[in-house]
Amino acid sequence: MVLKLHGLSVSTNTARVVACLHEKDVEFELVLVDLFACGNKEPSFLAKNPFGQIPVLEDGGITLFESRAISSYVAEKFKESGTDLIRHESLEEAALVKVWTEVESQQYHPAICPIIYEFFGKPVQGLEPDQAVIDANLVKLEKVLDVYETKLSSTKYLAGDFYSLADLHHFPYTFYFMKTPWGSLINDRPHVKAWWEDITSRPALNKVAEGMTFGENQ
Amino acid sequence: MVLKLHGLSVSTNTARVVACLHEKDVEFELVLVDLFACGNKEPSFLAKNPFGQIPVLEDGGITLFESRAISSYVAEKFKESGTDLIRHESLEEAALVKVWTEVESQQYHPAICPIIYEFFGKPVQGLEPDQAVIDANLVKLEKVLDVYETKLSSTKYLAGDFYSLADLHHFPYTFYFMKTPWGSLINDRPHVKAWWEDITSRPALNKVAEGMTFGENQ
Repeated sequence: MVLKLHGLSVSTNTARVVACLHEKDVEFELVLVDLFACGNKEPSFLAKNPFGQIPVLEDGGITLFESRAISSYVAEKFKESGTDLIRHESLEEAALVKVWTEVESQQYHPAICPIIYEFFGKPVQGLEPDQAVIDANLVKLEKVLDVYETKLSSTKYLAGDFYSLADLHHFPYTFYFMKTPWGSLINDRPHVKAWWEDITSRPALNKVAEGMTFGENQ
Repeated sequence: MVLKLHGLSVSTNTARVVACLHEKDVEFELVLVDLFACGNKEPSFLAKNPFGQIPVLEDGGITLFESRAISSYVAEKFKESGTDLIRHESLEEAALVKVWTEVESQQYHPAICPIIYEFFGKPVQGLEPDQAVIDANLVKLEKVLDVYETKLSSTKYLAGDFYSLADLHHFPYTFYFMKTPWGSLINDRPHVKAWWEDITSRPALNKVAEGMTFGENQ
């Protein structure tokens, strides 16, 4: 049975899972959730994810939410197919993937997410972006990127000399971030820039990027 | 070789890993990091974790940071010992552990962490807690706990009828939260209250709690 992913192509969290499915060469059907019509707050959707958020994955009788949990499940279940994103044959490499996946979740995401929300999310709702929030989070993001610059000067990717789920998880927010006026935070750090160019040249991520048009009609 | 955990017993993030090590019956040595003397900003520590945060685990030649990555590594490496925290024999149960572990990380933690910081962290630094920040996050936390209340009325623990890493990850912040004036958020929800009482009756967590004395000398 083909996997069903409930979400939207333009959504960062949906794109995180779609990127993983493409890297793993796993066939799936994207079931659109109409956020503007509050489709995510309908009882049938809340039965799948009580937090009312996209994406949700249905794999036979298994229903999963939280994008990072879904991608981790997909990477584990289909570990023999496509790119090995979790380095399942090496305890040490797998551990480093876990570390840098958590770095994305606990260090990078809390800084970049408010910037993307203020810059893209608020105007869609007719609200004014709060520049003070953006500025405070740009400072936080710079500190994280300084650590990345040093790390990426010694290994090609975050967890080591191999592309993994840790790199992939950075893709959706960074993709939109590069459309803001502050892309120099990436481009002014040569190793971070090379890493980002490498990631965005991957066919799986190019395919995801096609659907990520949020903010283009503003 | 015995595992070395660099951290502090009173620290929430150290306690998360210590709880996991106790549940897995894994022997370890706690190497104290003197945060007041900025031991976490010394070059020798930054070489272990470039973000300068505790805890750090050293297992032979492997050095890991980010508490949730460390506990996940410990639960995986020692899967045959102590409590099975990742349900490694069932793809579906393991997937649900991932989901609810991410719920802690992305829904629960962002709400409870600022409350604990304002209430316990700021006074230690001679700063006044910001009640507006606490109030805003109590509202967020209540919404998350409403979902938990419903979930825990159908399963004994978050991921199912089995104790897992998902429950364990909630322990340290909730432990300190119950020492604030807002413990009724837990106690007024009967299923959440029963879950919390069950968790805190576990010998492994009782052992961790002994060292969690932050704020007691204020």
